[in-house]
Amino acid sequence: MRPPYYAVIFTSLRTTKDEGYEVTATKMLELASQQCGYLGVETVRSANGEGITVSYWRDLESIRNWKIQSEHLLAQKKGKDVWYRSYKVRICQVKETYDFEY
Amino acid sequence: MRPPYYAVIFTSLRTTKDEGYEVTATKMLELASQQCGYLGVETVRSANGEGITVSYWRDLESIRNWKIQSEHLLAQKKGKDVWYRSYKVRICQVKETYDFEY
Repeated sequence: MRPPYYAVIFTSLRTTKDEGYEVTATKMLELASQQCGYLGVETVRSANGEGITVSYWRDLESIRNWKIQSEHLLAQKKGKDVWYRSYKVRICQVKETYDFEY
Repeated sequence: MRPPYYAVIFTSLRTTKDEGYEVTATKMLELASQQCGYLGVETVRSANGEGITVSYWRDLESIRNWKIQSEHLLAQKKGKDVWYRSYKVRICQVKETYDFEY
């Protein structure tokens, strides 16, 4: 994937409540990967509950479509009600990339 | 901080070698925060060595200046030689944000 493409940076702080979190998180990654315009995802959560998930998309329309996908909407609601103490979403255009492999 | 501003997404996989990694990582976060145009940072590393660090900047010039800062250049070299198995850097323009606080 070559720039320009789009990234959604989702930074969050979990509550200590589980209530199906892992199952839903895995399901959302799977559903996202089936969406039109999906390019990939990178996700990390530390032991103290801080998480950063970055998903990559072809264009803004793909991001909008995923945001309003029906099962994703239900997960977003439960995220606010139960799973997250706080979160922030940043929608970005990726302009330049470089990498290193040992 | 209101969009537009810039984000540098640094995703990495660590080797198992320490050799002063934590000290340097902390020092780099401190030095970055003193740079002109620095807006903030969010960083998470999981137990299995995957990390995502996102730093936020006012403009591309601030990002370029930080990339060539002398101590940071030394850290980048040691990163390639010792600390990282692989990494990827994505330079992005943040276009839109929203958040949630419980």
